[in-house]
Amino acid sequence: MDHLVSTTWLSEQEIIALLDRARNFHKYGARELPGKYTVSNLFFEPSTRTKISFEVAERKLGLDVVPFESGFSSTLKGETLYDTVKTFEAIGVDALVIRHSDEGYYEHLIGKTNVSIINGGDGSGQHPTQSLLDLFTIREEFGSFEGLKIVIAGDIGHSRVARSNADTLTRLGADVTYLCPEEWAGEFDSTSEWTEELLHSDVIMLLRVQHERHDGKMTFTKQGYHEKYGLTLERAKMMKDDAIIMHPAPFNRGVEIDEALIECSKSRIFKQMEYGVYVRMAVLEAVLNGRK
Amino acid sequence: MDHLVSTTWLSEQEIIALLDRARNFHKYGARELPGKYTVSNLFFEPSTRTKISFEVAERKLGLDVVPFESGFSSTLKGETLYDTVKTFEAIGVDALVIRHSDEGYYEHLIGKTNVSIINGGDGSGQHPTQSLLDLFTIREEFGSFEGLKIVIAGDIGHSRVARSNADTLTRLGADVTYLCPEEWAGEFDSTSEWTEELLHSDVIMLLRVQHERHDGKMTFTKQGYHEKYGLTLERAKMMKDDAIIMHPAPFNRGVEIDEALIECSKSRIFKQMEYGVYVRMAVLEAVLNGRK
Amino acid sequence: MDHLVSTTWLSEQEIIALLDRARNFHKYGARELPGKYTVSNLFFEPSTRTKISFEVAERKLGLDVVPFESGFSSTLKGETLYDTVKTFEAIGVDALVIRHSDEGYYEHLIGKTNVSIINGGDGSGQHPTQSLLDLFTIREEFGSFEGLKIVIAGDIGHSRVARSNADTLTRLGADVTYLCPEEWAGEFDSTSEWTEELLHSDVIMLLRVQHERHDGKMTFTKQGYHEKYGLTLERAKMMKDDAIIMHPAPFNRGVEIDEALIECSKSRIFKQMEYGVYVRMAVLEAVLNGRK
Repeated sequence: MDHLVSTTWLSEQEIIALLDRARNFHKYGARELPGKYTVSNLFFEPSTRTKISFEVAERKLGLDVVPFESGFSSTLKGETLYDTVKTFEAIGVDALVIRHSDEGYYEHLIGKTNVSIINGGDGSGQHPTQSLLDLFTIREEFGSFEGLKIVIAGDIGHSRVARSNADTLTRLGADVTYLCPEEWAGEFDSTSEWTEELLHSDVIMLLRVQHERHDGKMTFTKQGYHEKYGLTLERAKMMKDDAIIMHPAPFNRGVEIDEALIECSKSRIFKQMEYGVYVRMAVLEAVLNGRK
Repeated sequence: MDHLVSTTWLSEQEIIALLDRARNFHKYGARELPGKYTVSNLFFEPSTRTKISFEVAERKLGLDVVPFESGFSSTLKGETLYDTVKTFEAIGVDALVIRHSDEGYYEHLIGKTNVSIINGGDGSGQHPTQSLLDLFTIREEFGSFEGLKIVIAGDIGHSRVARSNADTLTRLGADVTYLCPEEWAGEFDSTSEWTEELLHSDVIMLLRVQHERHDGKMTFTKQGYHEKYGLTLERAKMMKDDAIIMHPAPFNRGVEIDEALIECSKSRIFKQMEYGVYVRMAVLEAVLNGRK
Repeated sequence: MDHLVSTTWLSEQEIIALLDRARNFHKYGARELPGKYTVSNLFFEPSTRTKISFEVAERKLGLDVVPFESGFSSTLKGETLYDTVKTFEAIGVDALVIRHSDEGYYEHLIGKTNVSIINGGDGSGQHPTQSLLDLFTIREEFGSFEGLKIVIAGDIGHSRVARSNADTLTRLGADVTYLCPEEWAGEFDSTSEWTEELLHSDVIMLLRVQHERHDGKMTFTKQGYHEKYGLTLERAKMMKDDAIIMHPAPFNRGVEIDEALIECSKSRIFKQMEYGVYVRMAVLEAVLNGRK
């Protein structure tokens, strides 16, 4: 594997191999990669989780990490992403983790530089390492994906997490339903009603309402959203005993999820973050080994 | 010691033990901690000294330091400090150094996460490592605190440094006087007159005039402040031979202190910064060992 | 060598020794410096190339690098550069790489602190490591400088790169011509016409048009600049077979250089960036060894 930019570039076998490798890191701890690699994290959009998760994963693998502040770089002098990446290539970086607001930004990079690209999120496109950590979390819980009933509820149309997970979960055999206000569905075939059947799913995965993208256009209040589309306490009570709640975070307490559910026994929200480090170690290892 | 958030949580014995340990680092150099620890520095307010002092101390102890840019994190998407700290916990960080404008921010964190908190300054609350480095500086000079006469002059009411030092110096037996314009005293019992007796103190500790907090409300000019409350050349001439001048910096040259005094033989201002690294190594070591 | 702030402080012998050392790093790879050194990169102006080039060079030499965010430091509370540098000195830093908009900022620092200063660019003043990497690139190509014909074309008067290179190239025996719009020449004796003779030079070095400095005052469009002063495809066709194209980057595609030339066989633009790391390793090594 030279790059990881979209889950759609991974076969099911490759996905399972990455999850196995991540489990290995989880069980037996980190191991520094043989060989000397230099990487950098180019985040052109704000991030806490994904950024620090990669930073920790890189250190655990013993990589050299070159700091980069997008807000204080030559981007301010009009430099393009392509030229920035070519610069990192010239300076001897092996792989770049990139988050950028342009959907499919990586298409202008791959094949044109010798740097491996790991996509940390491209606009409303893909977020492959988030999908892998979601898969890891579900697999730790249920062992496999075949026949699992999963609801993804929230700001589907704008969500790269929804897009990546729709691809992987479906291919791995899960039965996925999308729930959101009708006007937020984008290309997804969705419902906007929490039925008893949906609440009996194995996994309820909530997505953040991206207020910043709906300013002035939202036809309901936060409270209104919560009551109609959010996971309320009442709805959570109808969930099956062994069902779990997921959310990629950051979350809006009391909007897509009731505050009291965030750290409840069904919630795997902070587990997802923990697992993210192992998954990113597996991805970095696979990509860097792929360069040999 | 699990956390260090306020000097008031430390006994006198604990303070002295930390100072002893810091002196050890000063005398015999750094020693990497056994065991592998990951930390991060979460500064939500600008800082040079405290931030880089911790960064250097952490490297000298061989810790893994995860970079965090508060101005480019999910804080921008409305994430709370609690959720940010829970994220770092999930990702495997052992301790966080936090500076935040909310006084007592740590009360919402301690007992609710497994991360050790080291307070790098909370609003107008506390700044415990600054107090410890001030104590270290005074102890290097005078050997003990019992009976020392100390003036703390400046923006007392707003100052977390004043608050932390008031607590520790008094408990360790020093005789502390506060000097400031009457309206800046806050809860402190203060004077606003430099008397001969005050100028004969062992330590004159100046605090920065926080212009940003007084905009439009200051009833005197910088020059006016200097003449009435600052350490002028004339006042400095009346100091005892073995007395010292301290300032936590950054300083306003010519406001709280005459420019020529900053690097004079009585000044320990840059010594304080040097000692800060040893003190922070001692604190990090104590907190991380406390987790075992 | 205690500092590297201007090429004019280096003798020709010192320049050649640095280039030899850089070639050694290029050929035989990095070697960690014996001894423990701490450095920091203080960039008060945006940078990609110079900043990450130093960051990589420092890691390859095994230095401890203290992160510094100029936009989130006590500079915001009005702290001067001198006080910031004194702080780093107190905290135990050996060398600082500084980029600052004030021409000659280093004159207020050298001799007054014990920290070694490496100039990463001072306003329109000097950019010595850029000049050294340009020399390295030319020397790799032609073996020596004596009698080489070099054109430097672009925003000469504002350019610290032009200023540093004018000094070094001339002293090393090259024959340098400056080409730019008349009003941009500054102190340089320049031409504004691409003649056949100039296009037969050994090196054509282009400089970025600094749009940010000409707002509202430019008497021609980007296209107009390109046609009159830029390296067009037509002009490039007249270059000698073994001549090379250089540019310190970031570049404006289609302004000072035709887009198609940036990665053409004559271009050394990305080679320059690669060589920059070796040159900066040589400079850091020389400066840090000079402290012993």
